[in-house]
Amino acid sequence: MSKKMKICINTGGGDAPGLNAVIEAVTMAAHNRQWDVYGIKCGYAGLLNTDEIIHLTPEKVDGIASTGGTILGTTNKGNPFMMPVTNAAGEIEQRDLSDRVMENFRRLRFDALVAVGGDGSLEIANRFAEKGMPVIGVPKTIDNDMGGTVISFGFDTAVSIATEAIDRLHSTAKSHDRVMVVELMGRNAGFIALNSGISGNADVILIPEIPFDIEKVCDKLMDNELRGHRYAIVVVAEGAVPKGGDVIAKGAGEAGRQHVVLGGIAEYVAKEISRRTGKDSRSLVLGHLQRGGSPSTFDRLLSLRFGAAAVRAIEMGQFNHMVALRSPDIALVPLGEALGIQKRVLTNGDTVLTARDLGICFGD
Amino acid sequence: MSKKMKICINTGGGDAPGLNAVIEAVTMAAHNRQWDVYGIKCGYAGLLNTDEIIHLTPEKVDGIASTGGTILGTTNKGNPFMMPVTNAAGEIEQRDLSDRVMENFRRLRFDALVAVGGDGSLEIANRFAEKGMPVIGVPKTIDNDMGGTVISFGFDTAVSIATEAIDRLHSTAKSHDRVMVVELMGRNAGFIALNSGISGNADVILIPEIPFDIEKVCDKLMDNELRGHRYAIVVVAEGAVPKGGDVIAKGAGEAGRQHVVLGGIAEYVAKEISRRTGKDSRSLVLGHLQRGGSPSTFDRLLSLRFGAAAVRAIEMGQFNHMVALRSPDIALVPLGEALGIQKRVLTNGDTVLTARDLGICFGD
Amino acid sequence: MSKKMKICINTGGGDAPGLNAVIEAVTMAAHNRQWDVYGIKCGYAGLLNTDEIIHLTPEKVDGIASTGGTILGTTNKGNPFMMPVTNAAGEIEQRDLSDRVMENFRRLRFDALVAVGGDGSLEIANRFAEKGMPVIGVPKTIDNDMGGTVISFGFDTAVSIATEAIDRLHSTAKSHDRVMVVELMGRNAGFIALNSGISGNADVILIPEIPFDIEKVCDKLMDNELRGHRYAIVVVAEGAVPKGGDVIAKGAGEAGRQHVVLGGIAEYVAKEISRRTGKDSRSLVLGHLQRGGSPSTFDRLLSLRFGAAAVRAIEMGQFNHMVALRSPDIALVPLGEALGIQKRVLTNGDTVLTARDLGICFGD
Amino acid sequence: MSKKMKICINTGGGDAPGLNAVIEAVTMAAHNRQWDVYGIKCGYAGLLNTDEIIHLTPEKVDGIASTGGTILGTTNKGNPFMMPVTNAAGEIEQRDLSDRVMENFRRLRFDALVAVGGDGSLEIANRFAEKGMPVIGVPKTIDNDMGGTVISFGFDTAVSIATEAIDRLHSTAKSHDRVMVVELMGRNAGFIALNSGISGNADVILIPEIPFDIEKVCDKLMDNELRGHRYAIVVVAEGAVPKGGDVIAKGAGEAGRQHVVLGGIAEYVAKEISRRTGKDSRSLVLGHLQRGGSPSTFDRLLSLRFGAAAVRAIEMGQFNHMVALRSPDIALVPLGEALGIQKRVLTNGDTVLTARDLGICFGD
Repeated sequence: MSKKMKICINTGGGDAPGLNAVIEAVTMAAHNRQWDVYGIKCGYAGLLNTDEIIHLTPEKVDGIASTGGTILGTTNKGNPFMMPVTNAAGEIEQRDLSDRVMENFRRLRFDALVAVGGDGSLEIANRFAEKGMPVIGVPKTIDNDMGGTVISFGFDTAVSIATEAIDRLHSTAKSHDRVMVVELMGRNAGFIALNSGISGNADVILIPEIPFDIEKVCDKLMDNELRGHRYAIVVVAEGAVPKGGDVIAKGAGEAGRQHVVLGGIAEYVAKEISRRTGKDSRSLVLGHLQRGGSPSTFDRLLSLRFGAAAVRAIEMGQFNHMVALRSPDIALVPLGEALGIQKRVLTNGDTVLTARDLGICFGD
Repeated sequence: MSKKMKICINTGGGDAPGLNAVIEAVTMAAHNRQWDVYGIKCGYAGLLNTDEIIHLTPEKVDGIASTGGTILGTTNKGNPFMMPVTNAAGEIEQRDLSDRVMENFRRLRFDALVAVGGDGSLEIANRFAEKGMPVIGVPKTIDNDMGGTVISFGFDTAVSIATEAIDRLHSTAKSHDRVMVVELMGRNAGFIALNSGISGNADVILIPEIPFDIEKVCDKLMDNELRGHRYAIVVVAEGAVPKGGDVIAKGAGEAGRQHVVLGGIAEYVAKEISRRTGKDSRSLVLGHLQRGGSPSTFDRLLSLRFGAAAVRAIEMGQFNHMVALRSPDIALVPLGEALGIQKRVLTNGDTVLTARDLGICFGD
Repeated sequence: MSKKMKICINTGGGDAPGLNAVIEAVTMAAHNRQWDVYGIKCGYAGLLNTDEIIHLTPEKVDGIASTGGTILGTTNKGNPFMMPVTNAAGEIEQRDLSDRVMENFRRLRFDALVAVGGDGSLEIANRFAEKGMPVIGVPKTIDNDMGGTVISFGFDTAVSIATEAIDRLHSTAKSHDRVMVVELMGRNAGFIALNSGISGNADVILIPEIPFDIEKVCDKLMDNELRGHRYAIVVVAEGAVPKGGDVIAKGAGEAGRQHVVLGGIAEYVAKEISRRTGKDSRSLVLGHLQRGGSPSTFDRLLSLRFGAAAVRAIEMGQFNHMVALRSPDIALVPLGEALGIQKRVLTNGDTVLTARDLGICFGD
Repeated sequence: MSKKMKICINTGGGDAPGLNAVIEAVTMAAHNRQWDVYGIKCGYAGLLNTDEIIHLTPEKVDGIASTGGTILGTTNKGNPFMMPVTNAAGEIEQRDLSDRVMENFRRLRFDALVAVGGDGSLEIANRFAEKGMPVIGVPKTIDNDMGGTVISFGFDTAVSIATEAIDRLHSTAKSHDRVMVVELMGRNAGFIALNSGISGNADVILIPEIPFDIEKVCDKLMDNELRGHRYAIVVVAEGAVPKGGDVIAKGAGEAGRQHVVLGGIAEYVAKEISRRTGKDSRSLVLGHLQRGGSPSTFDRLLSLRFGAAAVRAIEMGQFNHMVALRSPDIALVPLGEALGIQKRVLTNGDTVLTARDLGICFGD
């Protein structure tokens, strides 16, 4: 029989529906092996200051799989390899505190860390693996832009919420003969915009992978009008860019996810459509609604499978791997390998072809 | 037996979930009396230019009660008493075309008009009533600010959507120890913000009826923090105003409903909270998502009851009234009477008291 | 200033969406008055055996308003005035243990009890009130059959779930030209069947208040078929009865809510329709799905308002009353008065008229 | 450039969410190639009697992707190779009418048929392919038991609805310390029960692939009780069988899907649990709710991709294939090959392991 383990888990990066389900599965799978399992707060911060480590028990995780957020907290800041610290002179400098993390990990006699996070968090996990920490990664990406896995949790929920929002906008757009431009997440990859745009019956989809010509977009809208279809839904990923390269939308990128959408891409597109076609056009930024709240059934199940697979990987001693979906199975891929890949929408893949077959315009 | 009637129906003002259900009920109730019923497009425009009048049949309205929008189209413009017309000199002037509407109404031998709309549309209906048109009004108000009725359709859906959005924001706010400020509809009345803020477990609710002091809001957030509650949800009606009177939020009012939320109230509140407390604060404008799409079950039923009651009122010859909810019954109130009243949140009513009992802060 | 109170709360009868919201509001409203508030487990059982009384704190009720069920547990058994007890001879006899409840209530120095429950539970509460216990009732009724209040919590959720189920059945019925008979809750009152049948676009609605003739139902279905409408949705309340009086459906009544629906009313109706018209007919019993799970937004808010109003009533010393909805306000009605009334669907009320106007058949 | 085609599409077998989305995609993809596309009513019936063939246009399919059912109708009866026909003697005999179908197909000059259906319908399609009809199959299976594709449309929706139902049952089961046994679809394959049981936090899952011992189930429930977990959710696929082989549940199989669940498996399990443990146990059959209504976002997209891929296959002349999901891509697999495989839950696959890791009991 395998030895009794003592493992820990953290969650890093932005919120994503399914984090709590991973935590539940890791806790239950460990508990059912008579292992001890601990929760590290706020990414790696809880391994720098170990005051708040939580003993995870079946009672603490009962029913959390269907809830949003993470009971461990998360953060976008705080890479222990480059931690912002105030020095004696009162200045902020970046310091490498990774040895302190390694020390605490060993002092607390942990046998393994399950690191749940996106590119950034798993990159850090990989560096700790190189320093000798036994690590299993669980990929988290709302945008579906991480390599090595067909999909990860959070994405199905995000696409569902976006589709539901698009559904709602249809009726108002139609009742008022209006153009509604809705901005969705996706700085580098347009998967959310593409999938929800198709599901939500959009007229136009603009994604980072296919630079758009605003004139082509306007052509499409006016063609529609001639056929009696006087309203339109335009779905735009926050990272979509006009052809010709100069990024007109200054708010895109990091700030595009935040509340200050000054010059955000949706607003730009709505204004240009108004100006060029005379049509009443409005924009809306869906923002945080896409990444919070209860996971969809699909994401609950995938997260639970990922969590349980992570514990089985530890049991087998297969460290420094990431769990991944190879439909219909769960696979283990070497962490380093997975991190090298950035997934993008295939511009000649069947999903884009489906959109074109349906008559959806990409502005190209 | 009552005579065979020939009636028409129009929908005016902004989109609201339930408009199609009213149309379905009016059509079916008329059909089951062997009456003829016609749909007028785009508010009163369809009575100026009568080319597009639709014969409404059971087939045409089958199943539309559960759909969003209005199959008749709607518009916020186009008061026939003050219609913008381009004159000979190429200037736009407002002209009273109401006589032409009356003429068409009589020429087409309509016996009654069912006018579905908000304050504005029913005000116009009332003026036609004074000119001799037999009219029945059906009140439509997302904001719940129309008098004469306990509630109208669209409001329950708007509150549900807003509450669901607030639910989703909770998990992200909590996972990141963040303040999320969400702006909801309500220029003059804070019902949507109040009801969804309570249902959605908000920490702070800001409404037009209770001017707020941003310092009080910050006090509340810091009190929470001392008790270990480090994140917060702030719900703000678009028409909320800071105490002292100078409206800092320029974007509020008409534009607050549109895409250009430059200086919108939510953004103002989020920035002030960040500045004064140092907390990470984000804002989000829910916008059109609140007024489009499928009506809730409550709104479907209410709309169907309103539509059927309108036809029964015509049958009884009780014109120039508005159907209204006097829970649990539907009543008829004189149009003129209902239009005089603008409903506001009662600041000492039980709903506000409930919020205070729950510990929710209004910033006063 | 009012004195510091020490109050308790219990929940009795069947599960209903909104119970936890009442508990949250009572706890928070008491807490914000610096009162102490305690939860009694499983109806009155927790006042017979006082081992499990819970101190309710803001932490314990945080966020429970949106969850289904009751954290205090509930039961349909256990009237302390007629408690089944095993006597010395090993026989079960009913004993009046109400004095022990009174004694414990006084010994623990409670100032008031908030009793949340249906007819049965509030009847018990009323008897304790007569024995000197200061009581505030909160009405709970999925079926909407309690008097004294326009509506109570749980009903809106039940109607929404039932409507959603009917929506789903439409597509299958239509695709296969089938008759789907769906049985909903309502032993004595047909409100759920009526409201969801209208909202869900049913062809036939059968309720206890309007005895039905199965031949009339079949007439309606064959009339529809002649008009090209070859499928149908029949909604039937569990307590619906055929004309002529002999209750054919033996499973109706208490058992109708349980899993053994041998000869349940829906099955009877489906079989008769098949036999008499030759149409492919299926039945489905929605059962417990109607009373469990998350409350709708409407029910969350109503429950929170009820809970807060109960605490305000205690503060004002207005005991032996029940909180009630008098839209748009919350009122207090004397407990004894409210209990005398059993609400039924008004067969000439506007909701039934609406159904008839829409062409829905009641089989009468 | 490819030649202008004239294609047709039919939908066969039971209803499934996504059928209309396939129809929309096929129509639009054909329309955008300037092809003609026609809808055949009720499976193959519309090619026997060609009176009701529909010309499919963009207007007719606009927005149907989000609706349940099939605008073409469907049927479980009517294999043209064995059609029940009344002969001269008044007896019903099965006749092979496939030549008449072939004749009509050629006479109407169709270039290809898109056949959407399950095992049975695609088997028929394959036989027509052997007779020379150019066919593309689109797999439809609520149960996920068809080979050749990772998944098909309808399954995600069914799992979501089932999970939502389980979620609702939790609160009532918990409030009353009850065992709720819920029967889900799955005669031969337990995918729906397995996936929704895991997502819905069930205590026990019984599937056809793992014969169960009712004593083991009761052991699990009593173990839970000792740990203070006094309620339970038991999810059972309609085709689950007790160990030892004699099928106690007579209603399982075909009838298990219908309304007469006399001795259905859920009722059997609930009764046995009551009898053996003394616990209050109830059963509920979800039935048709799992297969009707609006498709989930996942199923909308998958159906649209399948439909568009079918048209592209026709364009490429790759007939007698079935479109299939090879995540993340759509592939074409030879029809004959796909039909040979019947998918079952892998009893040592990662999903079953996940369930075991979470402490879920299979009764084995």
